[in-house]
Amino acid sequence: MSSVNSTNLKYSITDVVIVGAGPSGLMAAQALGRLGIDVTLVERRGLGEAYGNADGLVPRTMEIWQTYGMLEPFEAIGNPMIGMVAYEVSKDDGALVRSRPSKNVVVSSRFPYELTGSTASIEGTLKKNADDASVKFIQPAWPVSLDIIEEADGEYPVKVVFQSFQFNALSFVHWLHINFCSCANTQERNLEVLSAKYAIGADGAYSWIRRTLDIDMEGEQTEDVWGVVDVHLKTDFPDTRFKCIVQAGSGPLIIIPREDDKIRIYIQMSTADRIPRREDGRLDKTAFKHSDMLEKILLRLLPFNVEFEQVYWSTIFATAQKVAARFSSKNRVFIVGDACHTHSPKAGQGANASMGDAHNLGRSKIIAYVVKGWAKPSILDSYEEERRQYAQALISFDKEISTSLIEDRPAAEYRHSPGNANWLVISGIGISYATSNLTLPQTKQYDEVVAGERFPFGPIVRLADWRAFDAQDLVPSDGKFKLIVLPGNLQNPKSKAALLDFASGYQNAIQKSGMDTEDSTKTRLSTFTVARNAKEDILWTDIPSELVENWRS
Amino acid sequence: MSSVNSTNLKYSITDVVIVGAGPSGLMAAQALGRLGIDVTLVERRGLGEAYGNADGLVPRTMEIWQTYGMLEPFEAIGNPMIGMVAYEVSKDDGALVRSRPSKNVVVSSRFPYELTGSTASIEGTLKKNADDASVKFIQPAWPVSLDIIEEADGEYPVKVVFQSFQFNALSFVHWLHINFCSCANTQERNLEVLSAKYAIGADGAYSWIRRTLDIDMEGEQTEDVWGVVDVHLKTDFPDTRFKCIVQAGSGPLIIIPREDDKIRIYIQMSTADRIPRREDGRLDKTAFKHSDMLEKILLRLLPFNVEFEQVYWSTIFATAQKVAARFSSKNRVFIVGDACHTHSPKAGQGANASMGDAHNLGRSKIIAYVVKGWAKPSILDSYEEERRQYAQALISFDKEISTSLIEDRPAAEYRHSPGNANWLVISGIGISYATSNLTLPQTKQYDEVVAGERFPFGPIVRLADWRAFDAQDLVPSDGKFKLIVLPGNLQNPKSKAALLDFASGYQNAIQKSGMDTEDSTKTRLSTFTVARNAKEDILWTDIPSELVENWRS
Repeated sequence: MSSVNSTNLKYSITDVVIVGAGPSGLMAAQALGRLGIDVTLVERRGLGEAYGNADGLVPRTMEIWQTYGMLEPFEAIGNPMIGMVAYEVSKDDGALVRSRPSKNVVVSSRFPYELTGSTASIEGTLKKNADDASVKFIQPAWPVSLDIIEEADGEYPVKVVFQSFQFNALSFVHWLHINFCSCANTQERNLEVLSAKYAIGADGAYSWIRRTLDIDMEGEQTEDVWGVVDVHLKTDFPDTRFKCIVQAGSGPLIIIPREDDKIRIYIQMSTADRIPRREDGRLDKTAFKHSDMLEKILLRLLPFNVEFEQVYWSTIFATAQKVAARFSSKNRVFIVGDACHTHSPKAGQGANASMGDAHNLGRSKIIAYVVKGWAKPSILDSYEEERRQYAQALISFDKEISTSLIEDRPAAEYRHSPGNANWLVISGIGISYATSNLTLPQTKQYDEVVAGERFPFGPIVRLADWRAFDAQDLVPSDGKFKLIVLPGNLQNPKSKAALLDFASGYQNAIQKSGMDTEDSTKTRLSTFTVARNAKEDILWTDIPSELVENWRS
Repeated sequence: MSSVNSTNLKYSITDVVIVGAGPSGLMAAQALGRLGIDVTLVERRGLGEAYGNADGLVPRTMEIWQTYGMLEPFEAIGNPMIGMVAYEVSKDDGALVRSRPSKNVVVSSRFPYELTGSTASIEGTLKKNADDASVKFIQPAWPVSLDIIEEADGEYPVKVVFQSFQFNALSFVHWLHINFCSCANTQERNLEVLSAKYAIGADGAYSWIRRTLDIDMEGEQTEDVWGVVDVHLKTDFPDTRFKCIVQAGSGPLIIIPREDDKIRIYIQMSTADRIPRREDGRLDKTAFKHSDMLEKILLRLLPFNVEFEQVYWSTIFATAQKVAARFSSKNRVFIVGDACHTHSPKAGQGANASMGDAHNLGRSKIIAYVVKGWAKPSILDSYEEERRQYAQALISFDKEISTSLIEDRPAAEYRHSPGNANWLVISGIGISYATSNLTLPQTKQYDEVVAGERFPFGPIVRLADWRAFDAQDLVPSDGKFKLIVLPGNLQNPKSKAALLDFASGYQNAIQKSGMDTEDSTKTRLSTFTVARNAKEDILWTDIPSELVENWRS
């Protein structure tokens, strides 16, 4: 190989470019890709390189995964975390006292538990869906410049230049050289100019996209430091398959049961642990002795015997409670996930909040609809409105829970103190968006459907064959608008008449809209009618034919 | 190709030879194969040739499929038949009157519905499992002789000679020649002598194995004739997705909703339909005009409009209510399925009863255990004892239901008249085997567990992680004996003491049995303890360690 001083420049276009292939980037990629949007994902890591802290899905994330059909394969490899139990130090003799166990998820939910698994399995499931959705991956590659060029007719105003390596025998040697020989200035550069309609920065807490856009992180400067370790234990401690919060000594220890017999343990570190720092203030992970963390865990769990049969991975990390000042630039470049909010692992929210951002941004209602031309670009405003408000609520909760843990309150109180409202936040299912150009005022409420909240779950029965579904099965993330008609009791003549009126009005509206070809309507819109009747009392043919395509709907 | 007068003779051995690759043959094959038994299946049809009348699984069959892990893939392609409705002719004006619909399965069950699908999809699922279990298929091939040679030390006393064709370019031409040119005497014969420990005849109502063993069919000589057709309908009849019994005119019409939008219709024929017969008394299917059957269906469903959009398959068949005098010969050759019992399609039992036979014979408790040497050959007696008794009960029910339909009783009465006991029979879950060397007297009953009945379903919770299971999940068809300990309420000191006693007695018994190596016990036996306590009240470590391997059990 003759190493020459050259730059290979390549130009291409894509609908949406995403930087970062963690849970949020992959979630956005698969959500957009399956709707036929052309997506290019740029990732710094090489194929198969693992990293990351995500350890599971909360109920709302499970609901979201279900809308994409991704939950079932993950359930087969994940571990349901159903119960929780707390331990605290007895004031009398200093022994660990076990609370009565309770359900881990205390709010009403279609999936009333958390589903834990490795980062690799979460990202693997998302990656498979992104691949199936024809998302283009360019990795390893990293952005070197980003510009938004708002020209009169520019269809692709976002220009990202990134540096990449194509993997062939020569370039692989080259890549190894760069990554493992610490010689940052290489002599051969492959630069690619990608012109896109939109860009998404899903590139983590130290987001290059966010810094390039000059967006500040707002919030506390103080950082908590946590240790985390994935292990196989040999122990007489009986609660390794529950979420377990041990409130002993100088801070909390959290046990998360994982797939197979694995266990994740989080432990909050303190100044007494002498966490080493680099000159720039960031943690110096290389100088930290992991055996100190393991020793600390053993002590915290006394008098139980704990033996580390196998330690798979461990690290320390610092968390500041911060939210980005803006979540987008000119409604052309957006940031999601850790790039726009960071918090502690105590609420188990990192990857979940991030995937929620990506679902909100990527799914039907935002970029997908705009790229397809089914909605006005102004609906893009709602991403920041909705998700920034949620990120702030999450951080309030994180602070509250941190205070309660640091002050060494009784563990049982910790479990209940945040109150139902906060549990609604961390389970993800209580997220409530404020009134906007997308959301009606909350005073409008139809049956269980509340404006600004996610579509409710609950059993429904298909009239033609009595097959049971969940109401949420009516709203898959298939890129279609949904029209759910709730006529009430159809044996009530008034309700029946109102439904007939609605049906003919609906048909007129469709005809006037210019969407009156059958194909166009079906492509954009799914229509379901959910009546409040015993299944024996009405026939599927009682629903007006304008609202029913066949016995399935 | 030069056709010569030659016989190519080949010898081989196998543990179990099965003749016939319908639902019962395939069920036995996969059940045995997955336990490591060497199974050879001989089938007259070529690969991919379809036939057969099976149209779905009843609740007990679903339970059985679940024990093999086969239900989930079939649920994805099958159609749940949940509701049923009956129509009858009004005495006033002759119009069809619809009854109030009800659940199709009225007995309590883990799977409270039927699951319909094509014969191809049922056999396809079984075939895939048989392939995964390394079952050897030889097809097309048919037996030409069967002998049981009981020698002193003969390990393979069953000799089956069959004629086969290996599929290569020449033999395929040859096979076409035989099958489509009606020249029965061919000049080249491939004969194979298969020596087996056991043989199973799963070769249908005209079973060659049964006739070779000189086993008579006992029962009525009169035959009902039925027509059956698989169609796509265009109709204003609203109940095509329910099991629907239309009692109008000269006999019943039964609608079975099927996968996709398909529908199966059974219609009973009468002498007025002039069903053609051959000289030997069997139906002459070639002389029957299928358009006559379609016309009859249209008339029976008036005043609804029915248009046959597509007719996929139709046939006529005769059913006699008969049971074989014996189900085995010398406990070396067994017959299963239609080979030992035939009845009408009204109870929807054909393939279900057949697969039940095969499960009983093939699974753990009979041949598998005997071949492995874990049980005495005398337990083979229980196959005929148990399944013949059940076949007779089934036929009694078939007669009762036939009478009720022929006498044109009101459809609503038909639906309920057979009573709960009969519905228990046809759902398959009420099967109750008499006291035998395998079955304790029924007076012995522990909680919901009744001697002679299938292990009950119901929710249970694993203590260590609160994961929900069904009690039947404890008894998969994995070839192991199951020890289920039911200690009652462990907060009751007496129950707790009894459990401790049992645990130490159990450990002593294992040690005395010579099964005391850990591997041997685990290979043959699964042990579970199911306590009657609220999950919050006890810990998994409260179960004696002799009965608990780890937190999973």
